Amino acid sequence: MSESYELGSQFREFLKGVLDEKERGPQYGVKWGASVNLTGLKDNYKGTKVKPYTVPPGGIDNLALHSTDIFRIPGKGEFSVDFSGYFRVARDNPTTKDWSTFEILVNIIDLKMYGKHKDLGEIAVSLNPDVLSTGQLFPAGAPQAPAKCRIATGVVFDIPQFGLSVFNKEPILLMNEHVTSVPPVDDPNGHALLFLLPLFDRANPSGKPVAHLTSLRYGADNYITESEAKSFREQ
Amino acid sequence: MSESYELGSQFREFLKGVLDEKERGPQYGVKWGASVNLTGLKDNYKGTKVKPYTVPPGGIDNLALHSTDIFRIPGKGEFSVDFSGYFRVARDNPTTKDWSTFEILVNIIDLKMYGKHKDLGEIAVSLNPDVLSTGQLFPAGAPQAPAKCRIATGVVFDIPQFGLSVFNKEPILLMNEHVTSVPPVDDPNGHALLFLLPLFDRANPSGKPVAHLTSLRYGADNYITESEAKSFREQ
Repeated sequence: MSESYELGSQFREFLKGVLDEKERGPQYGVKWGASVNLTGLKDNYKGTKVKPYTVPPGGIDNLALHSTDIFRIPGKGEFSVDFSGYFRVARDNPTTKDWSTFEILVNIIDLKMYGKHKDLGEIAVSLNPDVLSTGQLFPAGAPQAPAKCRIATGVVFDIPQFGLSVFNKEPILLMNEHVTSVPPVDDPNGHALLFLLPLFDRANPSGKPVAHLTSLRYGADNYITESEAKSFREQ
Repeated sequence: MSESYELGSQFREFLKGVLDEKERGPQYGVKWGASVNLTGLKDNYKGTKVKPYTVPPGGIDNLALHSTDIFRIPGKGEFSVDFSGYFRVARDNPTTKDWSTFEILVNIIDLKMYGKHKDLGEIAVSLNPDVLSTGQLFPAGAPQAPAKCRIATGVVFDIPQFGLSVFNKEPILLMNEHVTSVPPVDDPNGHALLFLLPLFDRANPSGKPVAHLTSLRYGADNYITESEAKSFREQ
């Protein structure tokens, strides 16, 4: 390989990094952990093979996602809402390919989910662009043992029927202690570790909480197609 | 009461607020919730009476505190450390005096704890001045039922033997679901809701986590004297 090709290739990788950074949107005001360097990470879509107990190289996973969230709104009661959509997770290159000892940093770089409730109307969930949502996969400790995953996530819930847009200042901690593949596709076992997590009004962010998230269960589904991902990203 | 006295009294309250704000130290870069207005809140020390299932007026509680924290340090193992010290909690005036329905906002405005481990040496815990540690008491729902408490807390762990100072970017969520008095004195039932909480090196805050907090149990003890509190605050 000629030196100029090598340089050209590096330059393309660099540009890709710059472009990917740009796609992230605004600068993050708050970072709950380390940034994943997106340079050289390729998007993975439907058709990507996932093998159990196997550590793949880094990549950006575009996965379908569903959740059931329970909200408590003072004076109004508790509301359980089913959401479905997608998330786009930048997964760093692993520290090693050994399932027993690998570690991987992750960032959620996009998330869109939609739900509907008979009293609250339509609700949209999106990644909070002011917060870097970060996480980690922890080593399994043995070749066929489950790995663990945590991702500290910042989102915005838009509830247009109430003219309300709320967000979390403390992370919604998505976690899964039974990860048997990377990424954990078709895995309904995720939940958020939380206790009456306060949600704040974006129109009055310094005020008291306007609602609390009391429970969140989620499942990462399988890869979506590139055009499905594009459609979500443009919403 | 003459109008000038009234004004003088209001001015003293205002000055007290300014001074208390000043005592808080640096501006908070991150706030995990709403600020408690310290104006008019008096410090409570040893001798303050605490009645079960009774909602007291707002105040600033100076309480002894102990905890047992378990740290995981990559390549070194897990370490359990017992700490003792104090915390100073600004407790807002309650929304109502009715135990069934009251809510109270709280901020931790000082915290100092000390521990020692045979391998790690002496460890000091202090409140992170860059973060506003905030929380809330939730209503009990019935006159003799337990209330609930959550406080999102940011601290710094100094481990001088390793030349290391680490801090949390996600809150350490102190919680107690069995609060039978306000404040919950002599109550050993507190714990932190956390899962492998990352700790970051203050010398390299954008880097990867250097340790994880895997468990924290705590108990709020009783009021300390004014001179004990002064001694902690000056450390």
